Amino acid sequence: MTPIRTVAIVGGVHGNEFSGIYAIRRYQQQPELIQRPSFSVSTLFANPQAHQANKRYLHSDLNRQFKTVDLNNPALANYEQSRAKVINQLLGPKENPKTDFVIDLHNTTSNMGACLIMTQAGPFYNQLAAYVKMVMPEAIISRDEDHFAREDHALLCTLGSYGVIVEVGPQSQSVLRQDVLEQMHEMTKHILDFVELYNTGTLPELPKRTEAYLYLHSIKLPMNEKGERLGMVHKNVQDNDYKAIAPGDPIFTLFDGTEVPYDGDTVVYPTFINEAAYYDNNLAMSLNDKVWIELE
Amino acid sequence: MTPIRTVAIVGGVHGNEFSGIYAIRRYQQQPELIQRPSFSVSTLFANPQAHQANKRYLHSDLNRQFKTVDLNNPALANYEQSRAKVINQLLGPKENPKTDFVIDLHNTTSNMGACLIMTQAGPFYNQLAAYVKMVMPEAIISRDEDHFAREDHALLCTLGSYGVIVEVGPQSQSVLRQDVLEQMHEMTKHILDFVELYNTGTLPELPKRTEAYLYLHSIKLPMNEKGERLGMVHKNVQDNDYKAIAPGDPIFTLFDGTEVPYDGDTVVYPTFINEAAYYDNNLAMSLNDKVWIELE
Repeated sequence: MTPIRTVAIVGGVHGNEFSGIYAIRRYQQQPELIQRPSFSVSTLFANPQAHQANKRYLHSDLNRQFKTVDLNNPALANYEQSRAKVINQLLGPKENPKTDFVIDLHNTTSNMGACLIMTQAGPFYNQLAAYVKMVMPEAIISRDEDHFAREDHALLCTLGSYGVIVEVGPQSQSVLRQDVLEQMHEMTKHILDFVELYNTGTLPELPKRTEAYLYLHSIKLPMNEKGERLGMVHKNVQDNDYKAIAPGDPIFTLFDGTEVPYDGDTVVYPTFINEAAYYDNNLAMSLNDKVWIELE
Repeated sequence: MTPIRTVAIVGGVHGNEFSGIYAIRRYQQQPELIQRPSFSVSTLFANPQAHQANKRYLHSDLNRQFKTVDLNNPALANYEQSRAKVINQLLGPKENPKTDFVIDLHNTTSNMGACLIMTQAGPFYNQLAAYVKMVMPEAIISRDEDHFAREDHALLCTLGSYGVIVEVGPQSQSVLRQDVLEQMHEMTKHILDFVELYNTGTLPELPKRTEAYLYLHSIKLPMNEKGERLGMVHKNVQDNDYKAIAPGDPIFTLFDGTEVPYDGDTVVYPTFINEAAYYDNNLAMSLNDKVWIELE
């Protein structure tokens, strides 16, 4: 086991997700909140220009710019593509990063509570998930990990040798809620505590099985051939992130009142239901399988 | 009593408040939903460019551009100031409007339910409030009326001889929720039904007293002398629109954890708590008195 020696906590990758921005600000004023003896920790405000404009991004989504091939492509030159290259210098480079572990703080408008999103697989992540769920039972563990090699992952947190997203909601874009900020602080604290225990070989006995959600795919809102929306997320589904949807359950309501049933073959568990930021792409929600993370 | 002969229903004054935009779209496809025998009704999508940009506005808040003096000032020429002049031609002119009654559809990120905001006083409004509250008991009646002569009112709905805002929440900016859209449809239907009954002298017996909230003033988030925020809305207050705040109750939490008590002298009732759109001005919430609307 290789210890984690350098940790970066990142906020404000999306300029209108306020919790991470204010969390970072507090950590800069009270660094003792995030310091632990066995590693060094830094903070980064990733997209201050987008925050200044009170927008998710200026030119393109910063959290989709971190594929190795894109970071090394000088033709990708808009604001966020440029900012990604600077962040790659600061925390990476992605091929051989100076940062062992990146914790990236995000908000969602969906009713997802405090969610730990892991983008890769492996024993470090499995133990982290087991620890966080043990000390914070209301936490949700989300696995969005198996789709790409790390170099092909576009998320900022994949700049580090290890990386996770702390995703807390519901919170409207451009709003700061105390309850959501406190959940973010709590999950971040537990993650840092875990790293300290991991580094020093003092982890407590962890549960052998931890419930998690494994990302399958996203589904779009009903649209016509011109790309106009014909309906919305069904009110039975709204706010019910992680609640089972069975084949035939109503999932959309068309504007004429027609209910549209879920046409899949198996029970699925939705996340990012009606997330504001995904409207650009007409995404309605992500669908997941419920799985167990097993420790050996 | 002068009957209401022309009604305009307006949506999308703010481009990222989706319910009114989709309500208008439905009314255009199914005009029978809004038609009544005793008046003509039209619909208007007020700020399509801001919706296209997925923003509240492009240059300035459209719903602050309708003072008579501003409508008649050709030097005010940015997009929303120009659009206001066009809408004044369509629904006004404000000095002598062709529209008897304007219903303007809005969303808030605050937990305000379905709220009828009345910007002027008088028997028409008092009967409207009594009727809406009688047929939709969960509706909230808000009086924001006594501060200006109609010509000095900057809100779009003051273009008509009469005007109200239908304000429904909570809904994140740039999201469409079925439950919120249905509340908006319901309140709009009741308002239109009222106008028909009012015109035809067939109103049912109305309650003599109707509970309402009278706007007092807005309060700002705690800030330092540089204008930086020092705290946020206290979690006891968050989502508790219309719930009493007494002198000494915690109202803000500073980022260092300190609780700030409400320093007023009397019990007040908050609305627009932590509304995303008011962050530009660091507004934390509006404070109101609880009052009774009395019918003679």
